Amino acid sequence: MTGSLYGIGVGPGDPELMTLKALRLLQASEVVAYFAAPGRPGNARRIVDPHLRPGQRELRLEYPVTTEAVPTGTSYETLLVDFYDTGAKRVAELLDDDVDVALVCEGDPFFYGSYMYMHNRLADRYRTVVVPAVPSVLAGAAVLGAPLVCQDEVLCVLSGVLPGDEIEARLRTAGAAVIMKLGRNLPKVRDAVERAGLLDHARYVERATMATERVLPLAEVDPTSAPYFSMVVIPSRTAATR
Amino acid sequence: MTGSLYGIGVGPGDPELMTLKALRLLQASEVVAYFAAPGRPGNARRIVDPHLRPGQRELRLEYPVTTEAVPTGTSYETLLVDFYDTGAKRVAELLDDDVDVALVCEGDPFFYGSYMYMHNRLADRYRTVVVPAVPSVLAGAAVLGAPLVCQDEVLCVLSGVLPGDEIEARLRTAGAAVIMKLGRNLPKVRDAVERAGLLDHARYVERATMATERVLPLAEVDPTSAPYFSMVVIPSRTAATR
Repeated sequence: MTGSLYGIGVGPGDPELMTLKALRLLQASEVVAYFAAPGRPGNARRIVDPHLRPGQRELRLEYPVTTEAVPTGTSYETLLVDFYDTGAKRVAELLDDDVDVALVCEGDPFFYGSYMYMHNRLADRYRTVVVPAVPSVLAGAAVLGAPLVCQDEVLCVLSGVLPGDEIEARLRTAGAAVIMKLGRNLPKVRDAVERAGLLDHARYVERATMATERVLPLAEVDPTSAPYFSMVVIPSRTAATR
Repeated sequence: MTGSLYGIGVGPGDPELMTLKALRLLQASEVVAYFAAPGRPGNARRIVDPHLRPGQRELRLEYPVTTEAVPTGTSYETLLVDFYDTGAKRVAELLDDDVDVALVCEGDPFFYGSYMYMHNRLADRYRTVVVPAVPSVLAGAAVLGAPLVCQDEVLCVLSGVLPGDEIEARLRTAGAAVIMKLGRNLPKVRDAVERAGLLDHARYVERATMATERVLPLAEVDPTSAPYFSMVVIPSRTAATR
């Protein structure tokens, strides 16, 4: 007998935006595993905090280094692959002992989530259950009160890491768009949105559904930088016509 | 004093995939409103069924006609606009009487959801709270066990109503894609996926997370037709490389 691996999406930030299924499997699992950056509590860990059983066992999977601080001469990609290999081994040891593991991740596990790297390494050998969740992009639209996409419109989800010209081109043909992974890319993203003629329509959302949530027009944002939990939302322009 | 309008996403189908917040506001509201096609129980109504309080008041907003059966000489668009106008008036009457209304909708309220048409008509006059939810596209990826989109890939959400050439072109440049609203568009969608060279990679999901869920490779689907709750998922091809 081996344990089950639950890939549990815990939603965008508000602990009440977890699903009933996520809560049940989280509390039923012997071990709660989570990824965290060095020196940080871990985004998913913080979200599930009010829901953990007292004394519930935890497995912290700490990234070896942040994106910003890769030692010269080493490849961030290699560091990450080694880290995921080691993390998967640690999870596998628990599963081999017939222990169920709930690996929690912010947002949805398969929507830009790190859980997928564990899934790829373990799903062929162990029972895995993926619990889908509310993604940050829909939390962003909800707190804006802005219908995101309707009828036959195309929704495009983009990374701010893409070249500005590509972002601009995709925005020109999308009915609605969300741009994630802003960080230091925010000035470039803002320029691309402006060149696509959408600056007056674009909104900026930071930490949607968290206590520190901020919402403002993109045109009014200090474009120096943006935190991890931020996005630009360009909602449907036709939703109001029906 | 007027009541509050809660736009509550109830998720893809499994009642356990509702959020804790959706459940709380659903049960706290005096009236539960929902859209339904003639002769049908209503998709959202069916999902919340196990969660309703005994005797909880309901407001059924029944579409005047299905897409397939618009009388000649009338415009479906006009019928719909009138229907939403009338529905909004009925909801407003409750809100004016200081009654809270939970308008439930399958999936997420602002992700192709009909709630947006009530929101557009009422949000300027009444307190509205939108509760985001698990969208069907992420439920589809979860039941497939297929990481949907990763790193800096672009995710494209498309409607099967679009022309085949446009679907093909968008698939060629997307990192991952989901095609919704299949119905009678399925043969066209299948051809577009094949021309984009993605047929071997595309999966078909029907009624994800419901008891009658079906999952199979798109290449093996009888392409005659597909029900409302179905989609084609073309997951990331790079998620397995890290």
